[in-house]
Amino acid sequence: MQAINLFQNPLLTLVGAGPGDPELITLKGVKALSSAKVVLYDALVHTDLLEHAPENCVKILVGKRSGKHSFKQSEINELIVKYAYEFGSVVRLKGGDPFVFGRGSEEIEYAEKFGIASIVIPGLSCSTSLPGLQGMPLTKRGVNESFWVVTGTTEKGGISPDFYLAAQSSATVVVLMGRNKLHVITEFYKSIGKDKMPIAVIHNGSLN
Amino acid sequence: MQAINLFQNPLLTLVGAGPGDPELITLKGVKALSSAKVVLYDALVHTDLLEHAPENCVKILVGKRSGKHSFKQSEINELIVKYAYEFGSVVRLKGGDPFVFGRGSEEIEYAEKFGIASIVIPGLSCSTSLPGLQGMPLTKRGVNESFWVVTGTTEKGGISPDFYLAAQSSATVVVLMGRNKLHVITEFYKSIGKDKMPIAVIHNGSLN
Repeated sequence: MQAINLFQNPLLTLVGAGPGDPELITLKGVKALSSAKVVLYDALVHTDLLEHAPENCVKILVGKRSGKHSFKQSEINELIVKYAYEFGSVVRLKGGDPFVFGRGSEEIEYAEKFGIASIVIPGLSCSTSLPGLQGMPLTKRGVNESFWVVTGTTEKGGISPDFYLAAQSSATVVVLMGRNKLHVITEFYKSIGKDKMPIAVIHNGSLN
Repeated sequence: MQAINLFQNPLLTLVGAGPGDPELITLKGVKALSSAKVVLYDALVHTDLLEHAPENCVKILVGKRSGKHSFKQSEINELIVKYAYEFGSVVRLKGGDPFVFGRGSEEIEYAEKFGIASIVIPGLSCSTSLPGLQGMPLTKRGVNESFWVVTGTTEKGGISPDFYLAAQSSATVVVLMGRNKLHVITEFYKSIGKDKMPIAVIHNGSLN
């Protein structure tokens, strides 16, 4: 059995990769990558971003990709702890923003249990940036006073009950992962008399 | 009277500067700045960002700053058109994201009337990134299914009616410009039985 030296004060850095286009990461995110020893990255992350990391950096795809093994959240958590202690630090590169439907907090909480400190470098959330890239403002003076981002697919599979409150407000409602709930969404808007409400469906919004 | 050569196909580029920390701008935003001929920037923008622009770039502060002249939105719109035609392109550097309570769409619409094309480079919205920088996830599996960003100060001065719907949902509610509505916000949460709801007040969230 091989003895492994473990680092004393391991660090987890969660980096938001943004909505897809590799130029929509922050300078701070690039800086974290450029000194990374280990990068655990999601499938939604553009692989050009890995070029910011040093050549000898360990890079592991942990996201779901068809035909390959996909890691469960619990396995990703364990990899974070393992590599953080073996290499001293881990960069966890996640699509969008780690704290917006990103499960970033679950990874941080798990790491904390093992004495691993963490920092978060936010990324452009798809929810706010993709409409902008299509020229659609989320808010407009005189038209609305809020925007609401809600998941179209909850743990139980349905659309969140929050959607029904959101639809009644002035909010621009952004439904993530909502494509197969489109009929539910449009039917509800019709039922409350908002049948002229403009709607956009965005897919692959920041990549050509 | 001096004759001025006007450019044929002027371009307006709206760039989101992010929540304050000058390293929280995107690579794409830096690229736009590095080739800028004119930058019109807001007071909330960190001036370190201007160092990405060429030395001979025209840099004009158009935001509100105490004791100095502050430009009205209509004056900013006019400056965009003037400089776009005189220099061929204008970078409009705005705090946060141009399309999240940023009036970006008003500037684009005004420019369009004068035949000026525009592109948007999104920035980190304060609404999603500042909670993350404080370690607070906007969404968490099993706890909530949405987040809602609402202005605490509408054009008429009050809090948006949308807030009262938001408070009844599972959403993490982010109130921008809401500090002087804190009593209204907390009283309403109490009145619907949510008196144990955790609350955070963030000020200067990404600058030391």
